[in-house]
Amino acid sequence: MIKEIREHRSVRKYIDKPIPEEVLDEILTAGTRASTTGNMQLYSMVVTTSPELREQLAPCHFNQPCVRQAPVLITFCADLNRFDKWCLQRDAEPGYDNFAWFINGAIDAILASQNVALEAEAHGLGICYLGTTIYTARRIGEILNLPGGVVPVTAIVVGYPDGDAPLTDRLPLDAIVHRDTYHDYSAEDIDRIWSERESSEETAKLLADNDLPNLARIFTERRYKAEDNVAISRSYLEYIKEQGFFNQ
Amino acid sequence: MIKEIREHRSVRKYIDKPIPEEVLDEILTAGTRASTTGNMQLYSMVVTTSPELREQLAPCHFNQPCVRQAPVLITFCADLNRFDKWCLQRDAEPGYDNFAWFINGAIDAILASQNVALEAEAHGLGICYLGTTIYTARRIGEILNLPGGVVPVTAIVVGYPDGDAPLTDRLPLDAIVHRDTYHDYSAEDIDRIWSERESSEETAKLLADNDLPNLARIFTERRYKAEDNVAISRSYLEYIKEQGFFNQ
Repeated sequence: MIKEIREHRSVRKYIDKPIPEEVLDEILTAGTRASTTGNMQLYSMVVTTSPELREQLAPCHFNQPCVRQAPVLITFCADLNRFDKWCLQRDAEPGYDNFAWFINGAIDAILASQNVALEAEAHGLGICYLGTTIYTARRIGEILNLPGGVVPVTAIVVGYPDGDAPLTDRLPLDAIVHRDTYHDYSAEDIDRIWSERESSEETAKLLADNDLPNLARIFTERRYKAEDNVAISRSYLEYIKEQGFFNQ
Repeated sequence: MIKEIREHRSVRKYIDKPIPEEVLDEILTAGTRASTTGNMQLYSMVVTTSPELREQLAPCHFNQPCVRQAPVLITFCADLNRFDKWCLQRDAEPGYDNFAWFINGAIDAILASQNVALEAEAHGLGICYLGTTIYTARRIGEILNLPGGVVPVTAIVVGYPDGDAPLTDRLPLDAIVHRDTYHDYSAEDIDRIWSERESSEETAKLLADNDLPNLARIFTERRYKAEDNVAISRSYLEYIKEQGFFNQ
């Protein structure tokens, strides 16, 4: 298996060491080699190194320490602004102000992000994806001066790791893969898929610390609660509309 | 640069040769090593090898010949069904039937797809992303028996390449990268960014064949027309809602 894929892990602690410009350039170039819708490159990578701006962005990412520690924060945005401007300047009428093209731009942005992540790791760097990006997309957009047609989809921090981060476990492969068509899960399948994780020492400690009876309730009652999910859904969708992706 | 990233191209012609099971397993395992929201693995990979099913899926992908030629078609789906079933079986109330979790599942699915693509290339295989997946997601869902909570986001064909596919050009790196914050494009920037592609022989041929004055209008009047975009946007959003991602 490609070494960087096999050894990928989320790195949450970084040493105070900047990334050389030529390394950063190669990493970003790797991003642009990913497939993109119609070779339109409907994304932008906003590479924030300024400590002041990373300080402003930290609360958008729930003050995870890695956002302040890592020297580089890259925000991957669906971007129709650049393509639309080109069309208008060429007397062509762009029809991309709708949901399908938000999705196309988001797919482009995420594919690029994974190339950037792997290429960074090939240079001895560590990365961590910031799922908080969609929670606070409007505020991120304000800080990064995003114009209409541009929406943050994901972000990563990049830097030199401080110590070894653990490799995370995964569900068994056959839990994720369906052959030919989708085969829905029986109650026994569900028990089997999660059994190893549910019986781990790590889970036992989590349950004791949280005074909860099982791992699923750690997710539903601690990590990702319904009321927060609904609030995030509304605000992200509202922002996508404001940025011009709902003329449909 | 990682060889598979540097040499990635879309392969549209395949020889008639199946992929060994152990190779396919390693490729799919590579997919599961990608980062995923809260390590929840909110995606499924539906791996279709049956010629009959690929024949049924071909029209969903606008009968691109590669869908019939390549021995494997993998449909990457945002999948909350598996996670929700686990929660319910553990007396935990999942609150993931909303837009934010469609996006989280989509991000998970796309990150996995890029690992799968690169790992396939490391085994001498070629791949092509099928952007048509969101155009016909409902029909794909019917063919693949997708239950509620599952939505196709992207797909790739995988197989042994027939001949050499060309490496595609990209816009200059500084067209895609913004330092610290977003710097919007001037008219001069737009001209400069596209100048090389606009002045290429390939573009000259395209314009002559299509009787159009510039490349932008190839996109807006031939490839991705406003009326189609609006229809796709409506149908994809409607399907996402039907699959249970809009209780918000």
